[in-house]
Amino acid sequence: SYKPNIAFYEAHGLKGWQALEKTIAYLNEKCPDHFTIADAKRGDIGNTSSRYAKAFFEELNFDSITVAPYMGKDSIEPFLEYENKHTILLALTSNVGAFDYQTKMIGDQMLYQKVIDISKEWKNSRNLMYVIGATKAEYLADVRKIIPDSFLLVPGVGAQGGSLEKVCEFGMNDQVGLLVNSSRGILYASNGRDFAEAAAKKARELHVQMKKILINY
Amino acid sequence: SYKPNIAFYEAHGLKGWQALEKTIAYLNEKCPDHFTIADAKRGDIGNTSSRYAKAFFEELNFDSITVAPYMGKDSIEPFLEYENKHTILLALTSNVGAFDYQTKMIGDQMLYQKVIDISKEWKNSRNLMYVIGATKAEYLADVRKIIPDSFLLVPGVGAQGGSLEKVCEFGMNDQVGLLVNSSRGILYASNGRDFAEAAAKKARELHVQMKKILINY
Repeated sequence: SYKPNIAFYEAHGLKGWQALEKTIAYLNEKCPDHFTIADAKRGDIGNTSSRYAKAFFEELNFDSITVAPYMGKDSIEPFLEYENKHTILLALTSNVGAFDYQTKMIGDQMLYQKVIDISKEWKNSRNLMYVIGATKAEYLADVRKIIPDSFLLVPGVGAQGGSLEKVCEFGMNDQVGLLVNSSRGILYASNGRDFAEAAAKKARELHVQMKKILINY
Repeated sequence: SYKPNIAFYEAHGLKGWQALEKTIAYLNEKCPDHFTIADAKRGDIGNTSSRYAKAFFEELNFDSITVAPYMGKDSIEPFLEYENKHTILLALTSNVGAFDYQTKMIGDQMLYQKVIDISKEWKNSRNLMYVIGATKAEYLADVRKIIPDSFLLVPGVGAQGGSLEKVCEFGMNDQVGLLVNSSRGILYASNGRDFAEAAAKKARELHVQMKKILINY
Protein backbone atom coordinates (compact mmCIF):
# COMPACT_ATOMS: atom_id res chain seq x y z
CA SER A 1 0.00 0.00 0.00
CA TYR A 2 1.09 3.59 -0.69
CA LYS A 3 0.01 6.58 1.40
CA PRO A 4 1.15 9.95 -0.03
CA ASN A 5 0.87 12.72 2.55
CA ILE A 6 -0.91 15.53 0.72
CA ALA A 7 0.49 18.36 2.88
CA PHE A 8 4.01 17.73 1.63
CA TYR A 9 2.79 18.27 -1.94
CA GLU A 10 0.59 21.30 -1.18
CA ALA A 11 3.52 23.02 0.55
CA HIS A 12 5.11 23.35 -2.90
CA GLY A 13 2.09 25.01 -4.49
CA LEU A 14 1.29 24.32 -8.12
CA LYS A 15 4.47 22.26 -8.63
CA GLY A 16 3.49 20.18 -5.63
CA TRP A 17 0.02 19.47 -7.00
CA GLN A 18 1.61 18.50 -10.32
CA ALA A 19 3.96 16.11 -8.47
CA LEU A 20 0.95 14.62 -6.64
CA GLU A 21 -0.83 13.96 -9.94
CA LYS A 22 2.32 12.34 -11.31
CA THR A 23 2.80 10.25 -8.17
CA ILE A 24 -0.68 8.75 -8.16
CA ALA A 25 -0.70 8.26 -11.95
CA TYR A 26 2.60 6.38 -11.63
CA LEU A 27 1.30 4.22 -8.77
CA ASN A 28 -1.96 3.44 -10.59
CA GLU A 29 -0.02 2.47 -13.73
CA LYS A 30 2.89 0.54 -12.22
CA CYS A 31 1.15 -1.07 -9.24
CA PRO A 32 -2.56 -1.22 -10.09
CA ASP A 33 -3.15 -3.89 -7.43
CA HIS A 34 -1.69 -1.81 -4.59
CA PHE A 35 -4.12 0.02 -2.33
CA THR A 36 -3.52 3.79 -2.41
CA ILE A 37 -4.36 6.20 0.40
CA ALA A 38 -4.58 9.98 0.08
CA ASP A 39 -3.52 11.06 3.56
CA ALA A 40 -5.45 14.31 3.46
CA LYS A 41 -7.53 14.48 6.69
CA ARG A 42 -10.34 16.28 4.86
CA GLY A 43 -13.88 16.96 6.12
CA ASP A 44 -16.39 19.81 5.69
CA ILE A 45 -20.13 20.38 5.27
CA GLY A 46 -21.80 18.08 2.75
CA ASN A 47 -21.61 20.12 -0.45
CA THR A 48 -17.93 20.82 0.21
CA SER A 49 -17.00 17.26 1.18
CA SER A 50 -18.51 16.10 -2.10
CA ARG A 51 -15.90 18.29 -3.87
CA TYR A 52 -13.05 16.79 -1.84
CA ALA A 53 -14.39 13.34 -2.69
CA LYS A 54 -14.39 14.27 -6.36
CA ALA A 55 -10.82 15.62 -6.11
CA PHE A 56 -9.34 12.48 -4.56
CA PHE A 57 -11.58 9.67 -5.86
CA GLU A 58 -12.24 10.95 -9.40
CA GLU A 59 -9.59 13.48 -10.42
CA LEU A 60 -6.67 11.73 -8.73
CA ASN A 61 -8.20 8.23 -8.58
CA PHE A 62 -7.00 7.27 -5.11
CA ASP A 63 -8.53 4.11 -3.61
CA SER A 64 -9.09 5.82 -0.27
CA ILE A 65 -8.73 9.02 1.72
CA THR A 66 -8.28 9.85 5.41
CA VAL A 67 -11.01 12.12 6.84
CA ALA A 68 -11.63 13.90 10.16
CA PRO A 69 -14.87 13.15 12.04
CA TYR A 70 -15.42 16.42 13.93
CA MET A 71 -18.20 17.74 11.64
CA GLY A 72 -20.21 14.50 11.77
CA LYS A 73 -22.42 12.51 9.44
CA ASP A 74 -23.05 14.92 6.56
CA SER A 75 -19.33 15.71 6.36
CA ILE A 76 -18.43 12.06 5.69
CA GLU A 77 -21.36 10.55 3.78
CA PRO A 78 -20.38 12.23 0.46
CA PHE A 79 -17.15 10.19 0.56
CA LEU A 80 -19.04 6.98 1.39
CA GLU A 81 -21.20 7.28 -1.73
CA TYR A 82 -18.33 6.06 -3.88
CA GLU A 83 -18.47 2.31 -4.39
CA ASN A 84 -15.09 0.54 -4.39
CA LYS A 85 -13.51 3.45 -2.53
CA HIS A 86 -12.68 3.50 1.15
CA THR A 87 -13.02 6.38 3.57
CA ILE A 88 -10.65 6.16 6.51
CA LEU A 89 -12.05 7.94 9.56
CA LEU A 90 -9.73 9.34 12.22
CA ALA A 91 -10.66 7.63 15.46
CA LEU A 92 -7.65 7.41 17.81
CA THR A 93 -4.59 9.07 16.33
CA SER A 94 -0.94 8.36 17.10
CA ASN A 95 0.08 11.86 18.24
CA VAL A 96 0.22 13.40 21.72
CA GLY A 97 -2.71 15.73 20.95
CA ALA A 98 -4.95 12.65 20.72
CA PHE A 99 -5.34 12.94 24.48
CA ASP A 100 -6.71 16.51 24.26
CA TYR A 101 -10.13 15.38 23.06
CA GLN A 102 -10.20 11.84 21.65
CA THR A 103 -9.83 10.05 24.97
CA LYS A 104 -12.22 12.28 26.92
CA MET A 105 -15.25 10.46 28.37
CA ILE A 106 -18.71 11.02 26.90
CA GLY A 107 -21.01 9.02 29.14
CA ASP A 108 -19.39 5.59 29.37
CA GLN A 109 -17.37 5.90 26.16
CA MET A 110 -14.30 7.85 25.13
CA LEU A 111 -14.88 10.34 22.30
CA TYR A 112 -13.00 8.14 19.80
CA GLN A 113 -15.22 5.17 20.71
CA LYS A 114 -18.30 7.38 20.26
CA VAL A 115 -16.93 8.47 16.87
CA ILE A 116 -16.66 4.84 15.77
CA ASP A 117 -19.98 3.81 17.29
CA ILE A 118 -22.03 6.59 15.66
CA SER A 119 -20.27 6.21 12.31
CA LYS A 120 -21.59 2.66 11.99
CA GLU A 121 -25.07 4.11 11.40
CA TRP A 122 -24.04 6.29 8.44
CA LYS A 123 -25.16 5.41 4.94
CA ASN A 124 -22.73 3.02 3.20
CA SER A 125 -20.72 2.72 6.42
CA ARG A 126 -19.37 -0.58 5.03
CA ASN A 127 -16.97 1.67 3.05
CA LEU A 128 -15.41 2.97 6.27
CA MET A 129 -12.02 2.11 7.65
CA TYR A 130 -10.58 3.64 10.84
CA VAL A 131 -7.29 5.17 11.95
CA ILE A 132 -6.07 3.77 15.27
CA GLY A 133 -2.55 4.80 16.25
CA ALA A 134 0.03 2.08 16.94
CA THR A 135 1.28 4.15 19.87
CA LYS A 136 -1.95 3.23 21.65
CA ALA A 137 -2.00 -0.49 20.87
CA GLU A 138 -3.74 -1.47 24.11
CA TYR A 139 -6.81 0.50 23.02
CA LEU A 140 -7.18 -1.84 20.04
CA ALA A 141 -8.90 -4.46 22.19
CA ASP A 142 -11.68 -1.94 22.97
CA VAL A 143 -11.87 -0.94 19.31
CA ARG A 144 -12.36 -4.56 18.28
CA LYS A 145 -15.36 -4.80 20.64
CA ILE A 146 -17.10 -2.04 18.64
CA ILE A 147 -15.94 -2.95 15.13
CA PRO A 148 -14.70 -6.56 15.09
CA ASP A 149 -14.72 -6.79 11.30
CA SER A 150 -13.53 -3.36 10.10
CA PHE A 151 -10.19 -2.73 8.48
CA LEU A 152 -7.91 -0.48 10.54
CA LEU A 153 -5.14 1.81 9.33
CA VAL A 154 -2.48 1.80 12.02
CA PRO A 155 0.15 4.55 11.78
CA GLY A 156 2.86 5.15 14.36
CA VAL A 157 5.09 2.09 13.95
CA GLY A 158 8.62 3.39 13.34
CA ALA A 159 9.42 7.06 13.98
CA GLN A 160 6.56 7.42 16.47
CA GLY A 161 7.63 4.34 18.44
CA GLY A 162 4.61 2.03 18.22
CA SER A 163 5.11 -1.73 18.62
CA LEU A 164 4.15 -4.01 15.74
CA GLU A 165 3.82 -7.03 18.03
CA LYS A 166 1.40 -5.28 20.37
CA VAL A 167 -0.65 -3.91 17.49
CA CYS A 168 -1.10 -7.44 16.14
CA GLU A 169 -1.77 -8.92 19.58
CA PHE A 170 -4.65 -6.54 20.31
CA GLY A 171 -5.89 -5.58 16.85
CA MET A 172 -5.89 -8.56 14.47
CA ASN A 173 -9.16 -10.22 13.55
CA ASP A 174 -9.66 -13.44 11.57
CA GLN A 175 -9.15 -11.55 8.29
CA VAL A 176 -6.03 -9.89 9.81
CA GLY A 177 -7.90 -6.56 9.44
CA LEU A 178 -4.85 -4.35 9.87
CA LEU A 179 -2.95 -2.06 7.55
CA VAL A 180 0.14 -1.12 9.54
CA ASN A 181 1.97 1.92 8.35
CA SER A 182 5.52 3.20 8.83
CA SER A 183 6.20 6.48 7.04
CA ARG A 184 9.14 8.44 8.42
CA GLY A 185 10.81 5.24 9.65
CA ILE A 186 11.17 4.23 6.00
CA LEU A 187 11.23 7.55 4.13
CA TYR A 188 13.88 9.12 6.35
CA ALA A 189 16.04 6.02 6.78
CA SER A 190 18.94 7.97 5.32
CA ASN A 191 19.61 11.60 4.39
CA GLY A 192 22.49 10.59 2.15
CA ARG A 193 22.61 9.57 -1.51
CA ASP A 194 21.79 6.01 -0.44
CA PHE A 195 18.28 7.12 0.66
CA ALA A 196 16.49 4.74 -1.73
CA GLU A 197 18.51 1.70 -0.69
CA ALA A 198 18.22 2.61 2.99
CA ALA A 199 14.43 3.03 2.66
CA ALA A 200 14.11 -0.30 0.82
CA LYS A 201 16.14 -1.97 3.58
CA LYS A 202 13.89 -0.55 6.31
CA ALA A 203 10.76 -1.58 4.40
CA ARG A 204 12.12 -5.11 3.97
CA GLU A 205 12.95 -5.34 7.67
CA LEU A 206 9.39 -4.40 8.57
CA HIS A 207 8.07 -6.82 5.96
CA VAL A 208 10.07 -9.64 7.53
CA GLN A 209 8.79 -8.72 11.01
CA MET A 210 5.22 -8.77 9.69
CA LYS A 211 5.73 -12.11 7.95
CA LYS A 212 7.01 -13.70 11.16
CA ILE A 213 3.91 -12.62 13.02
CA LEU A 214 1.56 -13.72 10.23
CA ILE A 215 3.14 -17.18 10.01
CA ASN A 216 2.35 -17.82 13.67
CA TYR A 217 -1.14 -16.45 13.17
CA SER B 1 -13.23 39.62 3.83
CA TYR B 2 -12.85 36.84 1.24
CA LYS B 3 -13.08 33.14 2.05
CA PRO B 4 -12.25 30.86 -0.90
CA ASN B 5 -13.40 27.29 -0.29
CA ILE B 6 -10.39 25.16 -1.18
CA ALA B 7 -12.38 22.01 -2.04
CA PHE B 8 -13.97 23.69 -5.04
CA TYR B 9 -10.52 24.37 -6.45
CA GLU B 10 -9.03 20.95 -5.62
CA ALA B 11 -11.93 19.24 -7.38
CA HIS B 12 -10.48 20.57 -10.65
CA GLY B 13 -7.01 19.15 -10.06
CA LEU B 14 -4.00 21.07 -11.34
CA LYS B 15 -6.15 23.68 -13.07
CA GLY B 16 -7.99 24.24 -9.84
CA TRP B 17 -4.81 24.79 -7.89
CA GLN B 18 -3.68 27.24 -10.56
CA ALA B 19 -7.01 29.09 -10.23
CA LEU B 20 -6.55 29.19 -6.44
CA GLU B 21 -3.10 30.74 -6.81
CA LYS B 22 -4.54 33.32 -9.22
CA THR B 23 -7.48 34.07 -6.94
CA ILE B 24 -5.39 34.79 -3.85
CA ALA B 25 -2.75 36.72 -5.85
CA TYR B 26 -5.55 38.87 -7.29
CA LEU B 27 -7.09 39.47 -3.85
CA ASN B 28 -3.73 40.32 -2.28
CA GLU B 29 -2.96 42.75 -5.09
CA LYS B 30 -6.35 44.43 -5.54
CA CYS B 31 -7.60 44.43 -1.94
CA PRO B 32 -4.50 44.21 0.28
CA ASP B 33 -6.47 45.48 3.30
CA HIS B 34 -9.13 42.76 3.08
CA PHE B 35 -8.79 39.79 5.41
CA THR B 36 -8.46 36.52 3.47
CA ILE B 37 -9.47 33.09 4.76
CA ALA B 38 -8.44 29.77 3.24
CA ASP B 39 -11.44 27.62 4.08
CA ALA B 40 -9.49 24.39 4.13
CA LYS B 41 -10.36 22.60 7.40
CA ARG B 42 -6.84 21.18 7.65
CA GLY B 43 -5.22 19.46 10.65
CA ASP B 44 -2.70 16.61 11.07
CA ILE B 45 0.23 15.59 13.29
CA GLY B 46 2.75 18.37 13.91
CA ASN B 47 5.28 17.82 11.13
CA THR B 48 2.44 17.56 8.60
CA SER B 49 0.49 20.57 9.90
CA SER B 50 3.64 22.64 9.52
CA ARG B 51 3.54 21.80 5.79
CA TYR B 52 -0.12 22.87 5.50
CA ALA B 53 0.78 26.09 7.32
CA LYS B 54 3.57 26.69 4.82
CA ALA B 55 1.22 26.01 1.89
CA PHE B 56 -1.45 28.49 2.97
CA PHE B 57 0.51 31.13 4.91
CA GLU B 58 3.71 31.25 2.84
CA GLU B 59 3.09 29.84 -0.65
CA LEU B 60 -0.41 31.27 -1.07
CA ASN B 61 -0.09 34.09 1.49
CA PHE B 62 -3.57 33.82 3.01
CA ASP B 63 -4.16 35.81 6.22
CA SER B 64 -5.87 32.87 7.89
CA ILE B 65 -6.97 29.25 7.53
CA THR B 66 -9.75 27.14 9.03
CA VAL B 67 -8.52 24.05 10.92
CA ALA B 68 -10.17 21.03 12.58
CA PRO B 69 -9.46 20.41 16.29
CA TYR B 70 -9.84 16.62 16.48
CA MET B 71 -6.10 15.83 16.62
CA GLY B 72 -5.42 18.34 19.41
CA LYS B 73 -2.60 20.65 20.42
CA ASP B 74 0.31 19.50 18.27
CA SER B 75 -1.91 19.51 15.18
CA ILE B 76 -2.70 23.24 15.58
CA GLU B 77 0.38 24.84 17.14
CA PRO B 78 2.40 24.79 13.86
CA PHE B 79 -0.22 27.17 12.41
CA LEU B 80 -0.10 29.42 15.50
CA GLU B 81 3.65 29.97 15.12
CA TYR B 82 3.02 32.43 12.30
CA GLU B 83 2.80 35.99 13.57
CA ASN B 84 0.22 38.19 11.84
CA LYS B 85 -1.67 35.10 10.66
CA HIS B 86 -4.86 33.77 12.18
CA THR B 87 -5.85 30.17 12.70
CA ILE B 88 -9.59 29.62 12.80
CA LEU B 89 -10.49 26.57 14.86
CA LEU B 90 -13.73 24.68 14.20
CA ALA B 91 -15.73 24.78 17.42
CA LEU B 92 -19.47 24.59 16.72
CA THR B 93 -20.20 24.22 13.03
CA SER B 94 -23.34 25.21 11.14
CA ASN B 95 -24.22 21.79 9.71
CA VAL B 96 -26.53 19.07 11.03
CA GLY B 97 -23.59 16.74 11.75
CA ALA B 98 -22.45 19.22 14.43
CA PHE B 99 -24.84 17.41 16.78
CA ASP B 100 -23.12 14.05 16.22
CA TYR B 101 -20.15 14.92 18.42
CA GLN B 102 -19.70 18.66 19.04
CA THR B 103 -22.65 19.04 21.40
CA LYS B 104 -22.04 15.83 23.37
CA MET B 105 -21.35 16.38 27.07
CA ILE B 106 -17.85 15.82 28.48
CA GLY B 107 -18.25 16.35 32.21
CA ASP B 108 -20.12 19.64 32.53
CA GLN B 109 -19.13 20.98 29.10
CA MET B 110 -20.13 20.17 25.55
CA LEU B 111 -17.28 18.93 23.35
CA TYR B 112 -17.14 22.22 21.41
CA GLN B 113 -16.80 24.14 24.68
CA LYS B 114 -14.02 21.78 25.76
CA VAL B 115 -12.34 22.37 22.39
CA ILE B 116 -12.37 26.14 22.97
CA ASP B 117 -11.38 25.87 26.63
CA ILE B 118 -8.35 23.63 26.06
CA SER B 119 -7.21 25.60 23.00
CA LYS B 120 -6.71 28.70 25.16
CA GLU B 121 -3.67 26.99 26.73
CA TRP B 122 -1.88 26.38 23.44
CA LYS B 123 1.22 28.34 22.53
CA ASN B 124 0.40 31.61 20.74
CA SER B 125 -3.32 31.00 21.29
CA ARG B 126 -3.83 34.75 20.78
CA ASN B 127 -3.63 33.93 17.06
CA LEU B 128 -6.74 31.75 17.31
CA MET B 129 -10.21 32.59 16.03
CA TYR B 130 -13.17 30.21 16.25
CA VAL B 131 -15.93 28.97 13.94
CA ILE B 132 -19.37 29.17 15.56
CA GLY B 133 -22.28 28.49 13.19
CA ALA B 134 -25.00 31.13 12.82
CA THR B 135 -27.57 28.35 12.81
CA LYS B 136 -26.79 27.90 16.51
CA ALA B 137 -26.87 31.56 17.56
CA GLU B 138 -28.18 30.87 21.06
CA TYR B 139 -24.99 28.97 21.84
CA LEU B 140 -23.00 32.17 21.30
CA ALA B 141 -23.84 33.38 24.80
CA ASP B 142 -22.08 30.32 26.26
CA VAL B 143 -19.16 30.80 23.87
CA ARG B 144 -18.73 34.39 25.06
CA LYS B 145 -18.43 33.16 28.65
CA ILE B 146 -15.34 31.14 27.67
CA ILE B 147 -13.78 33.53 25.14
CA PRO B 148 -15.21 37.04 25.66
CA ASP B 149 -12.54 38.73 23.55
CA SER B 150 -11.89 36.30 20.68
CA PHE B 151 -12.89 36.96 17.10
CA LEU B 152 -15.49 34.52 15.79
CA LEU B 153 -16.10 33.43 12.22
CA VAL B 154 -19.83 32.84 11.88
CA PRO B 155 -20.96 30.94 8.78
CA GLY B 156 -24.51 29.88 8.12
CA VAL B 157 -26.28 33.18 7.47
CA GLY B 158 -28.00 32.90 4.09
CA ALA B 159 -28.35 29.49 2.45
CA GLN B 160 -28.13 27.67 5.79
CA GLY B 161 -30.81 29.85 7.39
CA GLY B 162 -29.01 31.49 10.33
CA SER B 163 -30.32 34.82 11.67
CA LEU B 164 -28.00 37.83 11.56
CA GLU B 165 -29.94 39.59 14.32
CA LYS B 166 -29.67 36.67 16.72
CA VAL B 167 -25.98 36.20 15.98
CA CYS B 168 -25.33 39.83 16.89
CA GLU B 169 -27.58 39.70 19.94
CA PHE B 170 -25.75 36.75 21.48
CA GLY B 171 -22.28 37.04 19.99
CA MET B 172 -21.09 40.64 19.79
CA ASN B 173 -18.51 41.92 22.24
CA ASP B 174 -17.32 45.51 22.71
CA GLN B 175 -15.00 45.19 19.69
CA VAL B 176 -17.89 43.63 17.70
CA GLY B 177 -15.79 40.45 17.54
CA LEU B 178 -17.78 38.82 14.74
CA LEU B 179 -16.99 38.00 11.14
CA VAL B 180 -20.35 36.92 9.71
CA ASN B 181 -20.21 34.97 6.52
CA SER B 182 -22.73 34.26 3.77
CA SER B 183 -21.32 32.12 0.97
CA ARG B 184 -23.94 30.34 -1.09
CA GLY B 185 -26.53 33.04 -0.34
CA ILE B 186 -24.34 35.43 -2.31
CA LEU B 187 -22.47 33.19 -4.75
CA TYR B 188 -25.57 31.37 -5.95
CA ALA B 189 -27.89 34.37 -6.04
CA SER B 190 -28.47 33.69 -9.73
CA ASN B 191 -27.63 30.90 -12.16
CA GLY B 192 -28.15 33.22 -15.13
CA ARG B 193 -25.81 35.56 -16.93
CA ASP B 194 -26.63 38.21 -14.32
CA PHE B 195 -24.85 36.18 -11.64
CA ALA B 196 -22.34 38.94 -10.81
CA GLU B 197 -24.99 41.65 -10.44
CA ALA B 198 -27.26 39.33 -8.46
CA ALA B 199 -24.39 38.40 -6.12
CA ALA B 200 -23.44 42.06 -5.65
CA LYS B 201 -27.08 42.87 -4.85
CA LYS B 202 -27.26 40.11 -2.20
CA ALA B 203 -23.95 41.23 -0.69
CA ARG B 204 -25.17 44.84 -0.52
CA GLU B 205 -28.42 43.74 1.13
CA LEU B 206 -26.49 41.90 3.82
CA HIS B 207 -24.15 44.86 4.19
CA VAL B 208 -27.15 47.17 4.80
CA GLN B 209 -28.58 44.76 7.37
CA MET B 210 -25.23 44.66 9.17
CA LYS B 211 -24.92 48.47 9.11
CA LYS B 212 -28.36 48.88 10.68
CA ILE B 213 -27.41 46.60 13.54
CA LEU B 214 -24.01 48.25 14.03
CA ILE B 215 -25.54 51.76 14.13
CA ASN B 216 -27.72 50.77 17.06
CA TYR B 217 -24.77 49.12 18.72
